Amino acid sequence: MQRLNAEVICIGTELLLGEILNSNAQYLAQQLASLGIPHFYQTVVGDNPERIQKALAIATGRANLIITTGGLGPTPDDLTTETIADFFDAPLVERSEIWERICEMYAQVGRQITANNRKQALLPQGAEVLPNPIGSAPGMIWQPHRDLTILTFPGVPSELYPMWQQTAIPFLQSQGWVKETFHSKVLLYWGIPESALAERVHHLFESKNPTVAPYANYGQARLRITARATTQAEAEALIAPVEAEIRQLTGADCYGVDEDTLASVVGKYLQKHNQTLAVAESCTGGGLGQMLTDVSGSSAYFLGGVISYSNDVKANLLNVSRADLAKYGAVSAIVAEQMALGVQSQIQSDWGISITGIAGPNGGSDEKPVGLVYIGIAAPDRSVVAIEHRFSPSRGRNWLRNVSACSALDHLRRRFVMIGKVTA
Amino acid sequence: MQRLNAEVICIGTELLLGEILNSNAQYLAQQLASLGIPHFYQTVVGDNPERIQKALAIATGRANLIITTGGLGPTPDDLTTETIADFFDAPLVERSEIWERICEMYAQVGRQITANNRKQALLPQGAEVLPNPIGSAPGMIWQPHRDLTILTFPGVPSELYPMWQQTAIPFLQSQGWVKETFHSKVLLYWGIPESALAERVHHLFESKNPTVAPYANYGQARLRITARATTQAEAEALIAPVEAEIRQLTGADCYGVDEDTLASVVGKYLQKHNQTLAVAESCTGGGLGQMLTDVSGSSAYFLGGVISYSNDVKANLLNVSRADLAKYGAVSAIVAEQMALGVQSQIQSDWGISITGIAGPNGGSDEKPVGLVYIGIAAPDRSVVAIEHRFSPSRGRNWLRNVSACSALDHLRRRFVMIGKVTA
Repeated sequence: MQRLNAEVICIGTELLLGEILNSNAQYLAQQLASLGIPHFYQTVVGDNPERIQKALAIATGRANLIITTGGLGPTPDDLTTETIADFFDAPLVERSEIWERICEMYAQVGRQITANNRKQALLPQGAEVLPNPIGSAPGMIWQPHRDLTILTFPGVPSELYPMWQQTAIPFLQSQGWVKETFHSKVLLYWGIPESALAERVHHLFESKNPTVAPYANYGQARLRITARATTQAEAEALIAPVEAEIRQLTGADCYGVDEDTLASVVGKYLQKHNQTLAVAESCTGGGLGQMLTDVSGSSAYFLGGVISYSNDVKANLLNVSRADLAKYGAVSAIVAEQMALGVQSQIQSDWGISITGIAGPNGGSDEKPVGLVYIGIAAPDRSVVAIEHRFSPSRGRNWLRNVSACSALDHLRRRFVMIGKVTA
Repeated sequence: MQRLNAEVICIGTELLLGEILNSNAQYLAQQLASLGIPHFYQTVVGDNPERIQKALAIATGRANLIITTGGLGPTPDDLTTETIADFFDAPLVERSEIWERICEMYAQVGRQITANNRKQALLPQGAEVLPNPIGSAPGMIWQPHRDLTILTFPGVPSELYPMWQQTAIPFLQSQGWVKETFHSKVLLYWGIPESALAERVHHLFESKNPTVAPYANYGQARLRITARATTQAEAEALIAPVEAEIRQLTGADCYGVDEDTLASVVGKYLQKHNQTLAVAESCTGGGLGQMLTDVSGSSAYFLGGVISYSNDVKANLLNVSRADLAKYGAVSAIVAEQMALGVQSQIQSDWGISITGIAGPNGGSDEKPVGLVYIGIAAPDRSVVAIEHRFSPSRGRNWLRNVSACSALDHLRRRFVMIGKVTA
């Protein structure tokens, strides 16, 4: 067949109304790029059969791999499968294996099956099921004629991703359509702005293979190293020396790679030192504990904590001095220190971390503005420190709560890095 | 001219490589919807003149208002303006006012002007400048013929937004193209699947003005009511009876509208009854507290909680019986009840909510599989109940933790709804 050339059609009126961000388009674009499959157009169209068919007519005229997202659900405005079948004048056939799985899934969670679900079991004659390990709506792999392949996916990203990884990629490889692979490694940073990071490594931005590119995500700087090669091993061999040079240049500011999180890295240090952690949270209200427990297996080192949102809880459960609360206020270095020591002794953990601050939008003053945050760290030797942060309030409450929790984890991480240097 | 009909063309190879998320497409979609300007297709195309012209040929065949983003910068791959001019065989003319502003801006920040910048001063003959108050790249407003208007914007969102607000909207209004406004209201549901919700109200899906459409977001079903009218008041009058009918049909399953969250709704009930809340979290690790404190002002009713990730914390800080922990296990109804009562008495709150479960991916057994969650609710009269959930493990740890916290809030919400019915 002619050279492979993919096109993405995202189907959903909610996209045209701007109700959701089209993250699927970015994911599929990244995936196609990493597989070296050219991809020249993306189209977004609503849940309208006539317009979906017009989009199909255009796409099939310029691409031979059509990937659709959305419109596979059980509701009346989910029309993708029947519209595609109609476009190619193919009859719809019910697939018993799909219907049985839908019934199974609904039974599992005790949900009532409705007439609407039945149409999710229909696929065009000759199409293969593209299994959905998460949800009830499967996609399809269909070659309506020799020079055209259509892959359909639901619009829910958490369903699309595993379907792409588990079935679509192996299918594309089995067709011999994936030759070169692009392999990337992302170095993760906390506590250094993207511009300062770029300054340190800018000489690498000219490199062609691997390429090095900086980018920032939620105020977190990253460096992506991307190598092009015929095998992953070859790509990794190209990346290794560049990664080593970057790590040399950026030192402790780099906390991890790829899927690492500040919480998972802190967890590794705690396990390595066979130590435990407890948290005392005021303005983050549980967000730090949630970050730590996002890591499966965190119960090995995370014991728990106290959400001391009110001053009574700070005093009663964490033994914070009521006199100090009155004199210095709940958002102060001394209260952060007492919270960290308090949760450490209450929960009998090796480390205690505390966060107290003003997340806003209200509650700020000239002396204590929104964005003022104190992080307390009580160490195994019962020594305690408090670090003051004055974050910009401009990004709002949720951002402030998130950077406060991340900064607390980063301070603990850097303590372990220092310990490593001392003992090394 | 024929009825206005807009189309968005996002230009940039970085979009086709998935390097950036296309947030401009969502922003423009929201803006067009709120202005009542129909918008049926979005196209993404790379920085390639031939393909940009093919996209223009298609778009001008089906829309009379074309809005482009991207490709206005000074680099060689920024080709949007010259490609559009070429498509309509219009000569490019340098605009001194643009050139002077570019020189000014570069002087201000002490940046060296390059030959590349000069092309940013070029616009097709007859086009008006669409000023960029932030960056050096202006857009244009061009009517190459009577029935077609083209608006171009840079790809940087922080530049596009003010350009749209300050110039594009007033222009569209001045043309008399903004007559009707679309007003939407979204009804939010918890504890009912999208398909079952659709069954209850499917007769409304045929309605034309207002329209009613279901959609699901992170396992949460929603119904959107959208009215088209010349004034917002008129739109709201169209929506009101349909909303009333839907509320009648869906009862307590509807927890709120638009920006409401389960946490904000629970907060309103607590404030209305002048009651306080504390939480005891095991598998959610702080996520319930974080949800509650996402709401600014939640300190009026949320006192705090205990993250009892380890059994020692459950026993020591929440007075859960060690015998029961040994006999029934941490994930059990009786432990959930003791956690709720424990945090209620420790923190002296009116209500205590607890969550204990198996979030996985490990730690499950035949008897207690991943997805088994107990939610405890201790009421102001010190009565306590535990509700068992068996969530599908297929969506993974983070999803399980999120639905567990949401379900806990929903149970408390339904208690208040019942209280309302009793007292009513």
